[in-house]
Amino acid sequence: MTVAASIAALDRIRTIVGLNGLLTAPEDMAPYLSEWRGRFKGNSPAVVRPASTEEVAAVVTICAEAGIPVVPQGGNTSLVGGSIPYEEGREIVLSLSRMNRIRGIDTLNYTMTAEAGVVLKTAQEAAKDKDRLLPMSLGAEGTCQIGGLISTNAGGINVLRYGNMRDLVLGLEVVLADGRVWNGLRSLRKNNTGYDLKHLFIGAEGTLGIVTAAVLKLYPRPRQSETAFIAVPSPAAAIELLARLRAASGDAVAAFELMSRRCLEFALKHVAGTIDPLSEPSPWYVLTELTAGTQSDAFRENVEAALGEAFEAELATDATIAQSETQANQLWFIREAIVEAQKFEGGSIKNDVSVPVSRVAEFIERAEAAVAAACPGIRPTPFGHVGDGNIHFNLSQPEGADTAAYLARWDEICHVVNEVIFDLDGSISAEHGVGRFKKDEMPVIKSPVEFDLLRAMKAALDPKGLLNPGKMLP
Amino acid sequence: MTVAASIAALDRIRTIVGLNGLLTAPEDMAPYLSEWRGRFKGNSPAVVRPASTEEVAAVVTICAEAGIPVVPQGGNTSLVGGSIPYEEGREIVLSLSRMNRIRGIDTLNYTMTAEAGVVLKTAQEAAKDKDRLLPMSLGAEGTCQIGGLISTNAGGINVLRYGNMRDLVLGLEVVLADGRVWNGLRSLRKNNTGYDLKHLFIGAEGTLGIVTAAVLKLYPRPRQSETAFIAVPSPAAAIELLARLRAASGDAVAAFELMSRRCLEFALKHVAGTIDPLSEPSPWYVLTELTAGTQSDAFRENVEAALGEAFEAELATDATIAQSETQANQLWFIREAIVEAQKFEGGSIKNDVSVPVSRVAEFIERAEAAVAAACPGIRPTPFGHVGDGNIHFNLSQPEGADTAAYLARWDEICHVVNEVIFDLDGSISAEHGVGRFKKDEMPVIKSPVEFDLLRAMKAALDPKGLLNPGKMLP
Repeated sequence: MTVAASIAALDRIRTIVGLNGLLTAPEDMAPYLSEWRGRFKGNSPAVVRPASTEEVAAVVTICAEAGIPVVPQGGNTSLVGGSIPYEEGREIVLSLSRMNRIRGIDTLNYTMTAEAGVVLKTAQEAAKDKDRLLPMSLGAEGTCQIGGLISTNAGGINVLRYGNMRDLVLGLEVVLADGRVWNGLRSLRKNNTGYDLKHLFIGAEGTLGIVTAAVLKLYPRPRQSETAFIAVPSPAAAIELLARLRAASGDAVAAFELMSRRCLEFALKHVAGTIDPLSEPSPWYVLTELTAGTQSDAFRENVEAALGEAFEAELATDATIAQSETQANQLWFIREAIVEAQKFEGGSIKNDVSVPVSRVAEFIERAEAAVAAACPGIRPTPFGHVGDGNIHFNLSQPEGADTAAYLARWDEICHVVNEVIFDLDGSISAEHGVGRFKKDEMPVIKSPVEFDLLRAMKAALDPKGLLNPGKMLP
Repeated sequence: MTVAASIAALDRIRTIVGLNGLLTAPEDMAPYLSEWRGRFKGNSPAVVRPASTEEVAAVVTICAEAGIPVVPQGGNTSLVGGSIPYEEGREIVLSLSRMNRIRGIDTLNYTMTAEAGVVLKTAQEAAKDKDRLLPMSLGAEGTCQIGGLISTNAGGINVLRYGNMRDLVLGLEVVLADGRVWNGLRSLRKNNTGYDLKHLFIGAEGTLGIVTAAVLKLYPRPRQSETAFIAVPSPAAAIELLARLRAASGDAVAAFELMSRRCLEFALKHVAGTIDPLSEPSPWYVLTELTAGTQSDAFRENVEAALGEAFEAELATDATIAQSETQANQLWFIREAIVEAQKFEGGSIKNDVSVPVSRVAEFIERAEAAVAAACPGIRPTPFGHVGDGNIHFNLSQPEGADTAAYLARWDEICHVVNEVIFDLDGSISAEHGVGRFKKDEMPVIKSPVEFDLLRAMKAALDPKGLLNPGKMLP
C-alpha cells in the first residue's frame, strides 16, 4: 500500500471514530504498543478506538479494502505478545476499550451480555450486585477485558469448578475479516442448529474475527467458602488428595493450587507480609478452596473429615483451615507472592504447561531431572492450577549465575521441558496462549494434519490474512 | 460414477473390512436404512462396518477417491433422520457400531477414552465401576452410541448440571473427508494452542468428519439424591422456583422438568402404572432432582426449606418428595410415560425448541395462543427440560379430528410456533439437531452472514461434499 493510500484510509477511519477515537501521537500510542513487562514491543501508524460494533465493522471494512492489517487489543495483559503489533509498523491497533457497556443481566436466565471492553472486575461486580457469580478470576482482573479473555480462552483460579472462559460463553458478536458482523449473541443453553461457530473465535487470539460482545453464563453465588493450606509429601500425594477431596466434598473444590517449598521460601524472603502458615517445613504445599452454595456447619466438618482421612493415608502431613476471610486472604496472598518473588532471584525461565491431572507428578519429577541435567544448579519453582493439570513450571537461575547468560538459554531449556510435555501428551501453553511468543512452535507441536486444519480455518475466515497476522500461526 | 467403478470400490472396501464388515443383502441392511419411527427411509449399495480407526480411514479414502458419499451412523436413534441415507441409494452407510472399545478410564484425571460405537449405557456402567459418573443420560441410552451423541451434541436430563455432550468432550479422534486421521485425543483440561477444532466436529452431524473416538469428562458420583414432584401455578412460577432452588441448594439442581396437567392426564389415561402423586389437580407440575456429592440430613432439610419458602411465595401449591429410590423412580416414570402417552391421542406435531430460561413462560403463553388461533381445539402438551429453556412443545390434534388431515398441517403449524421462537431469540432445534428434517429451515433461521460461515466450514473441511450430504445444510 502506498503512503497516500494509507493516509486516505486513516482519514476515512477518523470520520468513523472521531478525533477521540484515533490516536497517532507516539506518546498517546505508547501504552498500546508494548507489553506490560516490556518483552514485546511494536509500532503502528494509529491506535483506533471505536465505541460501537458498527464503528468496529466500519473500521475493519476500510482496513479490508485498503489491505491494512489489524491487531485487536483488549486490556493488553497478555503474556505472549498476542495484542502487540510487530516492529514493522504496518498494522493498526484496534482497541476495544471504549466498548465497555454491560448491555444487560438476565438474573432468571443466569446470563450477562457484555461488550468486549468491559473490565473483568467491573463485570464481576455487576454480577454480584444482582446476587450472581461471574466465576472467571485471575491476577489481571482489574485490567483485562471480556474480549481479551474470550480471545485467549483465559484460565485462572476457578477453572476446576467452572471451566475456562470458553465454558462461560453462550453467545458472541464478532466482526469478521471483511467487516461484516456475525450476530451470534444467543443466550440459549441448548441450540443444535448448525456448527458451533462461537468456539472457533474463542481462543483464536483475534486471528479469525474481532469479538465485540458476548453473552456470559452466571452462577449462584457461593454462600460458604473454606480455604486450607496443606502440607503434602509429594505432587503424587497432592493429586490423590484432590481426587479424594472432590469425591468427599461433592465436587466442591473450586481451586487447588500446588506449590513447592522453594516457591514459599522465595515468597517469605522477598515479599513483605508473607507468612509461613505451618510450623514445620514441607517439600510441597496445596492451597485449596472449597465452596458451597449453602451455609452449613456440615460443610466445614466434611472438609475437616476429608483432611483427617488424608492424614491417615499419609497424603498430608499438616494443614491449617482459615478461620476467617482475613486468614483466607492471607493464604491466597502467599500464592500471589510466589509470582512476585521470583524476580528477586535472578533470571526466571517460564513454562505454562499442562498434562493430564494424573500425570502431574510424573511430569514434575521428569522435568526437574531433565532441566537439572541441562543446567546444573537450576532452581525449579513449580506452582499452579494442578487441579487442571496446569503447572507454571518456572525455573530460577542457579545461585550466582550470570542472568543474561542464563536467560540466553531460554529456548534451549524450554525445549528440554517441552520434550517431557510431548512425551506425556501435554500442552506447552496451557492458559497463556501462543501469540508472538510461541507461534514458531506450532508447526513443531501440531501434527501435519492438525496444522493443515488450523491453516484451513484461517484461510476460510481471513483469506487476506489481515487479522492479527503472525500471531498464533507462523 | 459408473456401476463398474462403484463395484470396484466396494471390492476394495471388502478387502479392508472383511466379509463381516460389509452388508449388501437388503435384509441385512434394513435396520440401517430406516429410522426407528419409520419416518425416514433410504437406500444404499452397502452398509460398511469397520472395526478400527485405520479401517474407517481406509474406507473413507476409497470413497473419497471414488466419489462415493458416506453417511456415518451410530445407534441410529436420531429423531431428525441425520443417520439415514437418501432414497437415491448413492450413499454408503458407515456404521461405527463395531468400534465399541472403551480404550481406558483414568480415575485420577476423571476421564474415559471411548470409541464411537460404545453404547451410552455401557459407558455409564464402566464409569460407575470405577466410582465415577458419566453424566450424559437420555431415553435412548441403551442404544445410542458415543459417536452419535457427540455428532449430535446430545442433551438429555442432566444438561442443567453437567452441560450438553459438547461440554463432556475433552478430546476427539476424527477421520476427515479425505481419509486422513486427526488425532485430537487429548485429555487436558487446559490447552491454548490453536483453534479448538473439536468443537467444529461436535454437533456437526457427521458432515465435517467422522468421529471415531473421544476423551470424555467424568465426575464424582453423587451420594445423595432428592426427587420432588411439585404442583406449580404457572410456567412463570416454575422458572422463579428454579432460580430459588438453584440458589438455596448451592446449584444442586440436576434436573428440572416442567409438564402441563394435560401431559399428566394423557399419561394417567394411557400408560399403565402411572399414578398422580398429588391429591389435587394443578395446571402445571415440576419434576426436579437435586443431587449432592455427600450424604447429609442437611441437604434434604435445605430442599424442604426451599420448598416451604416457595409455598409462602405462592410459587408452588403442593409437593411430594420421594422417600425412597422406588418412589423417585415412580416419579420419573411419569415423565417417561408422557412421551409414550401422546401417540394414543391421535396425531402429534412435535417441536423441540428452546428460549432463554427467563422467557419460557412467555413462549408457552404466546405459542399456545398462536396455535389455538391457527387450529381451534388443538391440544398442546408442553413438557421438557425447562431448566435449559428447552421445551418439547408437542401438539396433539383436536379431539375427533382427522389424524391425516391434522398431520398434513405439520409444517404450517410448526411455522406458527417458530415465529414465536424467532421473536424470542430462541432455537427451533434445541437438542434433536437438524438432519434431513429441518435442513430446509437453515437458510430461513440463519442470518446470511451465519449461513455463509456454515457453508465456509463445510467447504473447508469437506470440499467434495461427500460426508453426510444434504444433512444439516441444504
